[in-house]
Order: sequence, then structure tokens, then C-alpha cells
Amino acid sequence: MNLGALGEERLLKHIASGLPRDRRVFAGAGDDCAVLQAPGDGQFLLLKTDCVVEGVHFSAHTDAAQVGWKAMARSLSDFAAMSGLPEFALITLIVPAGRRAAWVAGLYRGLARAARKFSVAIVGGETSGTAGPAVVSVSVSGRVETERWVSRSGGKPDDDLFVTGRLGGSLRRRHLRFTPRILESRWLTERFAIHAMIDLSDGLGADLPRLARASGAGFEVDERSLPRARGCTVADAISDGEDYELLFAVAPDSSPALERVWRQKWRIQLTRIGRLTTRGKAKQKLPSGYVHFR
Amino acid sequence: MNLGALGEERLLKHIASGLPRDRRVFAGAGDDCAVLQAPGDGQFLLLKTDCVVEGVHFSAHTDAAQVGWKAMARSLSDFAAMSGLPEFALITLIVPAGRRAAWVAGLYRGLARAARKFSVAIVGGETSGTAGPAVVSVSVSGRVETERWVSRSGGKPDDDLFVTGRLGGSLRRRHLRFTPRILESRWLTERFAIHAMIDLSDGLGADLPRLARASGAGFEVDERSLPRARGCTVADAISDGEDYELLFAVAPDSSPALERVWRQKWRIQLTRIGRLTTRGKAKQKLPSGYVHFR
Repeated sequence: MNLGALGEERLLKHIASGLPRDRRVFAGAGDDCAVLQAPGDGQFLLLKTDCVVEGVHFSAHTDAAQVGWKAMARSLSDFAAMSGLPEFALITLIVPAGRRAAWVAGLYRGLARAARKFSVAIVGGETSGTAGPAVVSVSVSGRVETERWVSRSGGKPDDDLFVTGRLGGSLRRRHLRFTPRILESRWLTERFAIHAMIDLSDGLGADLPRLARASGAGFEVDERSLPRARGCTVADAISDGEDYELLFAVAPDSSPALERVWRQKWRIQLTRIGRLTTRGKAKQKLPSGYVHFR
Repeated sequence: MNLGALGEERLLKHIASGLPRDRRVFAGAGDDCAVLQAPGDGQFLLLKTDCVVEGVHFSAHTDAAQVGWKAMARSLSDFAAMSGLPEFALITLIVPAGRRAAWVAGLYRGLARAARKFSVAIVGGETSGTAGPAVVSVSVSGRVETERWVSRSGGKPDDDLFVTGRLGGSLRRRHLRFTPRILESRWLTERFAIHAMIDLSDGLGADLPRLARASGAGFEVDERSLPRARGCTVADAISDGEDYELLFAVAPDSSPALERVWRQKWRIQLTRIGRLTTRGKAKQKLPSGYVHFR
């Protein structure tokens, strides 16, 4: 069977199931970041790698600095999902020999701009030639206090579900210049018991079922409540993907205070979109046509 | 200017010089691993990323498990160079959709075999499609005790220079199944004051001048002493590259004991090939035609 037929998600699952387990690994393949034993007390080491490929994630006409920003920001968004602090990045750059040095310089400007915004040091990397399309892979390490780490799996039935920002329309506007919600995520876990969190990279229709399933819960979403980007339908908000906003679950008695102090602190929107339920009991209200992942 | 004309080494230097410095970074771009502040006392965090590209580092006919072994072992060899312990690896896999799943399974067998041999846990990664050749990028994190970290730059004039194993002929035999010298390196720094060390990835003719220059020293090598792999000339031993053996510098009064106890412990060869000198004083005895790097 070839990879096209097998599918990336199934392939990753299959591969992950074959890898040796290790007591130093608290979360591994399939989660936002790997969560790992660190030498210091009270901290986890977080690792994440991500890549963008020309012809898949960007085109030959995409501004190189925006490619660089996106390549770095995608990994940083996974740190936001776990309320982690990114610290160090390695860049792997695979480019055809005929590519102009100005393109590489632009790419690094974008990488460095995203890194600097979140106090990440670019500490090395590797370059290689290729006969094919350009590839930029970014690996980031960082850390999170053990008591502030948020996984996808801690949601409880009746938890309220919130999303930051507005959903949909990313391809037209935002997928090349989104802001990873690291500051917001760190603020949240400093003040509230966030039960479960994920960043919306594949769209609410794919990522909410992931969070619910990891938490052993079902979910109910009020479609009319979804915060839509300008010009977007409910369907766009559910399935466009690449929002890189946060979706999280908190106990319902935290919600009033959370909504109040959020408004005082942040200009981006925070919206209660529904709640987790007992698994199997509630109607899954996301139109199934928009859910890529079952 | 395009990248072919600029050259990888100059490009990396240029890029590294433009990145923001950071007091958490003890060694960064251009070194074997990045050496970084870690939360625990007495430890550095080490990070390394490396990649292999189809058509550059391996061919469509190369056994997939050997590709996987090599992709992992290259990064681990950089840990050996710093006497570090690798711990966790992330895999980025970029493959055309038409590639057979059996190829990917074979690749992972090789990756996992190399990881297991050195107690490295594969903790995640990323996959993407591509219209071009396959790419495998491996990022590894680990650690080293601050007092056992060995850089390239600590060599002193009159230090003896040693290499492990035999040099040359890698392309015919060994570049797909070499053993990173992690155990040997850890053994060395437990018992001896190793002043400077590097792994021979680009060949002695390129890597010895790097170590010498980083140490502010010159070097003398007795070509007749070079440990050559079977069927290799002196020129092969100097310039073939991909030996992944260790080159290191120690004070000459350590050499007799080192040579004696090494022989008792290890089956692979250890050879004194020359010494570091005061910069500019000694004749650089490596035939300049074989030195890629000046």
C-alpha cells in the first residue's frame, strides 16, 4: 500500500505504536509537543518539530519572510497548546542550489522575527541541497512547569469550551502571519485551572473531536455562537483549518470570572462555544460533513 | 547570487552572524550540537538536528533501514563529539504520496534500531507529502555534565592528536552502518582531560583544520601514521569523509596511560596521528589538495 492510500494520521499512529515506550516520556508521538523528563525539579522538557514544504504549505510566489514566520510560528503554536515556554530552535533548510541567496535571507528574517517575538534563540541547524522543492523544518525545545502543563486529555463532562480569536478564512488572510497564542495560554494557566487545551491547526471540526476523545468525553457546540472571521460561514469556521487559535475546557464555575478578567486583559475575543458532555450521550452538533476526522 | 555559488558553509556562517545572541546559549550554530542552559544544576541541554535527502545522501535503491540508521546515527555522532548523552529524538519525514508504506516501515526500523542502541526515545515528529525526493530530518536532545562537555576549541599547542578507528573508504562500505562513538567518548571524558574533540564527518582534511582553528592552534600530522581502512590510500583517509570517528586532543603526558587503558577496554583502534602546534609556526602537513576547507 502506498502512503496516499494509507493516510498521514494512520501512518503516524502505526509508527507510534511500534516505538519503544520509556518512563522518561510523559507524552510523545501524536500530542502537540513531546513532554519529557527534565533534569530540574518541577519542569518538563518540551520538544516539537514541524515542517513546511514548497508546493504543499507554500508556493514559489509566497513571500520568503512569511514562509519563515509560518515555519517558526506553527511549532510555537504547539507550545501554546500545552502552556509551554519555547526557548531554543534548530532550523533545517533544504533548498535547490539555484535558489537565490536573497530568498534564504528573507526566510531567515521571518524565522528570526517570530523567534524574537517569543524570546526563542535560534541555536543551529543544517542545510542541504535537493533536486526537489524547498523544505524548512523547525525543531523547538522549551519547558513547562509540571503543574501548569495542559494536555488534551484532562477535559471533564460539563466543562465549558472556549476558543480564542475568530475562526475561518485562514487561507485568504491569516495562515502566513498568525500569532501563536503563547502569552494568552501562559496567562490562562497562571490564573485558571485549564482542564484540556489544543491549538486549532486542522480546524475546529477536526481538533474538537480530538480533544473530546482524548478526554473520554463527548461535546455539544452551539454553531450560532462560533466566532467567525469576516466573510466566513459557520462551515468555514468549522473546517477551514490553520486558525492557530486555542480551544480549551474549564469547569463551568470558572467561566464567569474567566470571561470578565479576559476582557480586561486581552483585545482578542474569547468565546464560549459549547461544552463537553458524557461520551455518547449528547448529539455531536458539528455537521459531520465538516469533520475531517472520525 | 544563488546558493550553489555561495556555498553551504559560508551561507551558514552568514546566517549565524545575523542571529541574536543569548546568554542561555553556550555554543550555537556551527558547532556539533547547540549547548544550552538547562534547568538542572551541573548540566547543559544539547540539541542537534540533521537531515538526509534522497538523491544527495542516499539513492532510491538504498535499503530503507540503512537510510534510517544513518539518519539517526549522524546526529548521535555529534553527541559523541561533545561527550554528550542523547535522550530524545523527533523525526520529520517528507515523502511522496506514491512511496510504499513498506519503505517507511523499513526506514523506521533503522531509526528505531539506532535509537535503541543508545537508549534514545523517539518521542514524536511530523510527516508531510512532497512532489520531490524523500527527506528524513532527525532532531535529538540530550545532555552533558558541564564539567564533561568537550568543545572543538579547548586544544592547546603540543597536545597529542588521536583518532579512533580507521579512516577512508566510507562510501564503499561504512557510511550507512557506522557506529557513533558515544560509548567511547563517554569513557574518555570519565577518565581523561580531553581538551578538544570533533567527529570526522567531512574527513580529517576538513575537520582537523576546524578543530585546530577553533583552538587557536596549528597542527602537524604524520601521514604515515594515519589508520587507513582496508584498500585506502593516505589521500582517501584524509579526504573521503563520513568516517564518523572521533578526533581529539589531550595533553601529551596523558598519552601513555590513555593508550594503555584504551587497548584493555576497546577493540577499535586508537591512533596518535600528530599534535597541535603554535599557530602559524608548524608546517601544515595535510596535503592541501585534500583539504576542502581553509
